[in-house]
Amino acid sequence: MITPPLHEGSTETLARRLAGVRAATTALADPLSAEDCAVQSMADASPTKWHLAHTSWFFETFVLQPHLPGYRPVDPAYRELFNSYYLAVGGRHPRPQRGLLTRPSLTEIRDYRAHVDAALDRLFERGGATAAVLQLVELGLQHEQQHQELILTDIQHALSCNPLLPAYLPPKPLPAVEVPLLRWLSFDGGINGIGHRGGGFCFDNELPAHDVLLQAFELASRPVTQGEYLEFIDDGGYRRPELWLSLGWDTCQAQGWEAPLYWRRSDCGWRRFTLRGIAALDLDAPVAHVSYFEADAYARWRGARLPTEMEWELAARTAASKPEAEAAGNFLESGALVPRPAPAAPAPMQQAYGDVWEWTASAYAPYPGFRPAASAVGEYNGKFMCNQYVLRGGSCVTPRSHIRASYRNFFPPEARWQFSGLRLARDATPAERP
Amino acid sequence: MITPPLHEGSTETLARRLAGVRAATTALADPLSAEDCAVQSMADASPTKWHLAHTSWFFETFVLQPHLPGYRPVDPAYRELFNSYYLAVGGRHPRPQRGLLTRPSLTEIRDYRAHVDAALDRLFERGGATAAVLQLVELGLQHEQQHQELILTDIQHALSCNPLLPAYLPPKPLPAVEVPLLRWLSFDGGINGIGHRGGGFCFDNELPAHDVLLQAFELASRPVTQGEYLEFIDDGGYRRPELWLSLGWDTCQAQGWEAPLYWRRSDCGWRRFTLRGIAALDLDAPVAHVSYFEADAYARWRGARLPTEMEWELAARTAASKPEAEAAGNFLESGALVPRPAPAAPAPMQQAYGDVWEWTASAYAPYPGFRPAASAVGEYNGKFMCNQYVLRGGSCVTPRSHIRASYRNFFPPEARWQFSGLRLARDATPAERP
Amino acid sequence: MITPPLHEGSTETLARRLAGVRAATTALADPLSAEDCAVQSMADASPTKWHLAHTSWFFETFVLQPHLPGYRPVDPAYRELFNSYYLAVGGRHPRPQRGLLTRPSLTEIRDYRAHVDAALDRLFERGGATAAVLQLVELGLQHEQQHQELILTDIQHALSCNPLLPAYLPPKPLPAVEVPLLRWLSFDGGINGIGHRGGGFCFDNELPAHDVLLQAFELASRPVTQGEYLEFIDDGGYRRPELWLSLGWDTCQAQGWEAPLYWRRSDCGWRRFTLRGIAALDLDAPVAHVSYFEADAYARWRGARLPTEMEWELAARTAASKPEAEAAGNFLESGALVPRPAPAAPAPMQQAYGDVWEWTASAYAPYPGFRPAASAVGEYNGKFMCNQYVLRGGSCVTPRSHIRASYRNFFPPEARWQFSGLRLARDATPAERP
Amino acid sequence: MITPPLHEGSTETLARRLAGVRAATTALADPLSAEDCAVQSMADASPTKWHLAHTSWFFETFVLQPHLPGYRPVDPAYRELFNSYYLAVGGRHPRPQRGLLTRPSLTEIRDYRAHVDAALDRLFERGGATAAVLQLVELGLQHEQQHQELILTDIQHALSCNPLLPAYLPPKPLPAVEVPLLRWLSFDGGINGIGHRGGGFCFDNELPAHDVLLQAFELASRPVTQGEYLEFIDDGGYRRPELWLSLGWDTCQAQGWEAPLYWRRSDCGWRRFTLRGIAALDLDAPVAHVSYFEADAYARWRGARLPTEMEWELAARTAASKPEAEAAGNFLESGALVPRPAPAAPAPMQQAYGDVWEWTASAYAPYPGFRPAASAVGEYNGKFMCNQYVLRGGSCVTPRSHIRASYRNFFPPEARWQFSGLRLARDATPAERP
Repeated sequence: MITPPLHEGSTETLARRLAGVRAATTALADPLSAEDCAVQSMADASPTKWHLAHTSWFFETFVLQPHLPGYRPVDPAYRELFNSYYLAVGGRHPRPQRGLLTRPSLTEIRDYRAHVDAALDRLFERGGATAAVLQLVELGLQHEQQHQELILTDIQHALSCNPLLPAYLPPKPLPAVEVPLLRWLSFDGGINGIGHRGGGFCFDNELPAHDVLLQAFELASRPVTQGEYLEFIDDGGYRRPELWLSLGWDTCQAQGWEAPLYWRRSDCGWRRFTLRGIAALDLDAPVAHVSYFEADAYARWRGARLPTEMEWELAARTAASKPEAEAAGNFLESGALVPRPAPAAPAPMQQAYGDVWEWTASAYAPYPGFRPAASAVGEYNGKFMCNQYVLRGGSCVTPRSHIRASYRNFFPPEARWQFSGLRLARDATPAERP
Repeated sequence: MITPPLHEGSTETLARRLAGVRAATTALADPLSAEDCAVQSMADASPTKWHLAHTSWFFETFVLQPHLPGYRPVDPAYRELFNSYYLAVGGRHPRPQRGLLTRPSLTEIRDYRAHVDAALDRLFERGGATAAVLQLVELGLQHEQQHQELILTDIQHALSCNPLLPAYLPPKPLPAVEVPLLRWLSFDGGINGIGHRGGGFCFDNELPAHDVLLQAFELASRPVTQGEYLEFIDDGGYRRPELWLSLGWDTCQAQGWEAPLYWRRSDCGWRRFTLRGIAALDLDAPVAHVSYFEADAYARWRGARLPTEMEWELAARTAASKPEAEAAGNFLESGALVPRPAPAAPAPMQQAYGDVWEWTASAYAPYPGFRPAASAVGEYNGKFMCNQYVLRGGSCVTPRSHIRASYRNFFPPEARWQFSGLRLARDATPAERP
Repeated sequence: MITPPLHEGSTETLARRLAGVRAATTALADPLSAEDCAVQSMADASPTKWHLAHTSWFFETFVLQPHLPGYRPVDPAYRELFNSYYLAVGGRHPRPQRGLLTRPSLTEIRDYRAHVDAALDRLFERGGATAAVLQLVELGLQHEQQHQELILTDIQHALSCNPLLPAYLPPKPLPAVEVPLLRWLSFDGGINGIGHRGGGFCFDNELPAHDVLLQAFELASRPVTQGEYLEFIDDGGYRRPELWLSLGWDTCQAQGWEAPLYWRRSDCGWRRFTLRGIAALDLDAPVAHVSYFEADAYARWRGARLPTEMEWELAARTAASKPEAEAAGNFLESGALVPRPAPAAPAPMQQAYGDVWEWTASAYAPYPGFRPAASAVGEYNGKFMCNQYVLRGGSCVTPRSHIRASYRNFFPPEARWQFSGLRLARDATPAERP
Repeated sequence: MITPPLHEGSTETLARRLAGVRAATTALADPLSAEDCAVQSMADASPTKWHLAHTSWFFETFVLQPHLPGYRPVDPAYRELFNSYYLAVGGRHPRPQRGLLTRPSLTEIRDYRAHVDAALDRLFERGGATAAVLQLVELGLQHEQQHQELILTDIQHALSCNPLLPAYLPPKPLPAVEVPLLRWLSFDGGINGIGHRGGGFCFDNELPAHDVLLQAFELASRPVTQGEYLEFIDDGGYRRPELWLSLGWDTCQAQGWEAPLYWRRSDCGWRRFTLRGIAALDLDAPVAHVSYFEADAYARWRGARLPTEMEWELAARTAASKPEAEAAGNFLESGALVPRPAPAAPAPMQQAYGDVWEWTASAYAPYPGFRPAASAVGEYNGKFMCNQYVLRGGSCVTPRSHIRASYRNFFPPEARWQFSGLRLARDATPAERP
């Protein structure tokens, strides 16, 4: 969460980007009622209202209170109420009880956002945006983008718990696409640079950039599709323990998994619940809402494996010849809110960005020489480096400007409510394969 | 929940009473926001919105659909969504997930209520109110009164989970009262009639009226006060296992009980959270929000015991010389929303009705010859007759017209979120006491 | 556990009875290995070794230490290790961890028993057996008989958890019996005396003897048989919620009940695991190992109900014309270790004693005027009077001399590992029945 | 668990080694009673008797049944009873219920061992030991050595649950040692070979040997001692969440950790329970029985970190100049059964082997190109590669011949009942340190 290479854009640019991101967050709540915004459907998810407040709390706590003279917090109780996990800040409301906070109301939270926005404006106007402040503002902006994604994945889960299956937004007709065949991309081994280099923002967990030694490998040209995943289900994938990690099988049995989250059998075949309501499977689009355990089992069933995060990053850098590639993909801005089939145009590594986060085989761990930031914001990443796995590439609800090749997302192996999918990899030992 | 002695009032009277009760229920939600009405703070409690819907569902399912030709349900999904536990009606939304129902919205539920009210009006206007229908309407009315109480006890619990401790209504100054001394009322033993006799509505669990043989006993003239209960706490009552039932002690330890629910220590002594916000203890008012276990332990500590429900009913009938006594008390209509000190005027048995439900020593069991109603409404009472204890007399959030001497409320021994208190009893063996 | 009418037998008689009971307890462990005696298969059960030790601890703690001058406890650590729940005695080893006590060894516990037996002998020889001591010894003897039954029910459960299904004792051929038809015995209502009267030992929960007012009722001439219960299963009894108490249905679903405990479907029909190994059903013998919930559901399915404990006691006193009746029955001494069919000889109330404990509809509660004993032994009964139901009559593993008409056993409604069955009752209102 | 480089020793040598290992396993049970051998104190641990049986089952299932013509299993039921987790073999008795298997008895299990030993002898005598069989025998031997360690760690846990705190063996006086100061060993970065190379047995998870790129680092010359760890406790280490991983802190709070497992405060300071009874801390000996979470928190508190498994292996290979180093250390054969202080003689990397397993920072994951064995024995390692961390170097209860530089042990981060300690590492960036 640190941005060692100092922010490069001008202060005005940052202020403009910030205003855009803040407005976009608020707009995400527009299709929702006050009740929708207050509900918490599981401990891992948070109410929309809480996200709206917490992202404002972040600016209030780390930017405005220390750096805007005379700033008065909206309510001293918010300091604890909307703290997520920053122990250095003080106490916090228990996470599983965020859904009990019927007060402050959605209206009050919207006012809170406006109050913080106005104060941020003042900070910029008064020239208080020193380099250190700019770094914190940039961090707050990136942090808020993460919560934009969570607002959508969390509300999808909440709406899915309602037997009425209400849609977040109405269905949106999407153009048909001709999907290219899956190809295997080959990569030589050798020493490669990993991690964030050069300018622009990055989180502390992307640093330090360093070299790793990789062996030759192959990577699928696109993620696994819903149609391909259906073959796994039809082949008894959820009933064959030999395909699963031991812990994965235990979880599968205990939870009664039979398909990805949000899939359900109906009289007319498999259906899936999406932010745009109940829909048929899109057989050519990437499968989403699978756990690490399911991704791993699927890969084993195919005689392949998940890529490591180093392999993924190398491929994303190599295959995506142009830096603009990062910005090409099905992101939040497309408004699709579901993964889409790979574009017909043949690109070397398709859908590296957007559509679905891709589980990697890599446990989430610090890079050699990793140093968390010294202040409270140092609690952002490092302390979660245990029993989680890295996902790469962003999803259909990730803001376009938020992602990059070195970006490391992470979730426990049983998590399914994110737009998590997978891409196959295999060792470059062709002699062993028929 | 059956009313074997046919309803006596005129149809017009019932229609008027019904309208009053329905409007009163809706009004209970007025101080609450849409978010407040949607939250469920524990599995035992339900959202206000759910109460509003379920009480309408009751009329729709048991009165309108079978008895109003041409009635169209508002939404077929409601049949399952707002069914509480009537297996004969069909499936039901899982109780612990009622708080996930952000849709239908509060506005839609208010419309649902209006729709049902209009249809009930039509039923009456068209003369469809046969004797059987009148019985069901009366039952629905009584059922709705029970949910009025639950709306308040459930929302008090929900608001108590918010660190901001919002009040349901603003504090209301109450006149000071001079409290009479506790006296012991003596009752002879012998054969006494128990259960509902005569006209008017009653639930099936109050029937059949029958004779029981009681031994002589004594009953306290009023419930235990907060001040008296404080002595128990100060004497280490919550740390002395010998005072408790074995299961009670285990529960006390597991839950970390140190005082009644909603009491908390503060710098300025004990405070309690009420529907009208945080307040000091009212030392002369009855203690509320104690479990059966606490009530039982307190009584043992005082060298006394809880009365049986038969003793309580005998005393209520005897001591309350006039039938109007039932209507005299601190009920929902007083607007106090907290228990009040006993009136100074010396009555033989004070606060028998209103203020706090009084735990009795009686396990909830069928009366000899008990027969549940034959239809779905037969699931109202009988199937809960296990591991629960009877409470008598109504509370400060019970509607005045809802209570009577034979009324049997029941909760598991660990329940605390109701306005549950106690009154002491003892055997009439004065020689054993100093 | 108090014996207010002073013990009547001579000291010598008691000493002889005591020696017999003590030896019988020890002998129960003879068919078991040291490992068998150490295992605890669930929190409700205890290891055989623990029973052997705890019953000795009882004498050591309540008789020898206070009343035998110079008595030295075998090991001070035993005071806590083998305390069951007597808070007045001090701490206790946690109940669910009794199976972790591999030391002291079975041999050491046998030595402990011998040590205590020798000390009890000394106490008698030295004339230390005052009336108060005799009462305590009698209590310890009765307490030990209770644990004889528990040794067998607990080891049956433990052995049933082993896939090898080892038998406690080898099968024993039993003579075929012609079973009489079920008849309904009629009892008038009126005032009847309940509870222990006259001489001989009784527990405090059987006192005070008192009058109750009963309505006329009918009682089945014998308990429900396995064959009759099978009809309930075949009629879908375990899949029809309308037959069950609400809490019972929840338990049935959560535990996956489909038949009595120890019954299992096999290729050759239903089989049951017994202390004498796997066996076919004995269709004419009473069903055992059903919970209160199952007993209640069965009765409802038959259009009947469970008797109250007062009804049961009245019937047992009335129908069993001679006091010797109590001693006639299939008890521990028969060595059958399973319930047996009712004898062909027509008796008014068959199998009132022995074979299976009979669930009653009565919640376990104090009799009017109940007073627990003043000392530590006062913790014997009263503190368990919550959320349990009374069973009457003893079982096939109850010692013959232990039971009587006023005897009150009690277990939670979900308990199934005892030899618990049922006898049907119904109201004496023949006009309502076809 | 595969040994791709064919076993090199002669058949006779293997047979002799096998007989030695089998006898050593059996001897571990000698100080224990039948009850001791049957108990299971937690789901992670198994009864001694189960270990004795399971290791025999391994030979019976994978060696004797397929490769010794005419071999008759002792009991067909054992196939399921003593299967640990091999799904390809069939069903298995539930792990948490291994302690319920009072039968077969300890005597029968000893006979089972003798039966299998005799059959293995026959296999060797008849010349049936083909290369494939030798590999399986070697695997079974190594597998059995692993269970030797588990027998001791599991029984230590079981005995620790007994308030009598019985010792596995009597205390053994150990000579005092002068402990050398901790030094930091420096290692250059670069490409290094990791994994098993050359002859001799290894498990499949040590393969393939491959190159990794490491950065320069420093490693402590010896593990953290009990005295050093005590400073962490005294500095509030268990009360300072900022030192812990988030999941670690949650676990610490939920479990109430205040010190390593088996440490307890007493009137005379900290004491620890060992296989040789209660003892004072050995301040100069390595701390054991700490979880990954505690090891990680300790390292953070010291301003250091845990080494990766690659760093550890490089150091062990480099610093231990001679291959014999592996065999030098405090192993099971020393009989100490507790970690010992580092020897005074200055070696570059002390106690790399024996004393305590050392937690590394590395999540347990497959090496590039990892292939599990094709048969049932392929379930040995790979399927556990999730949410576990690698430990290196063996402990004071590891058999001497079992360990090597490439050996990878693994446990979940919360595990504490193994002899798990830690050694500090740090990045070689001296400029950043004062």
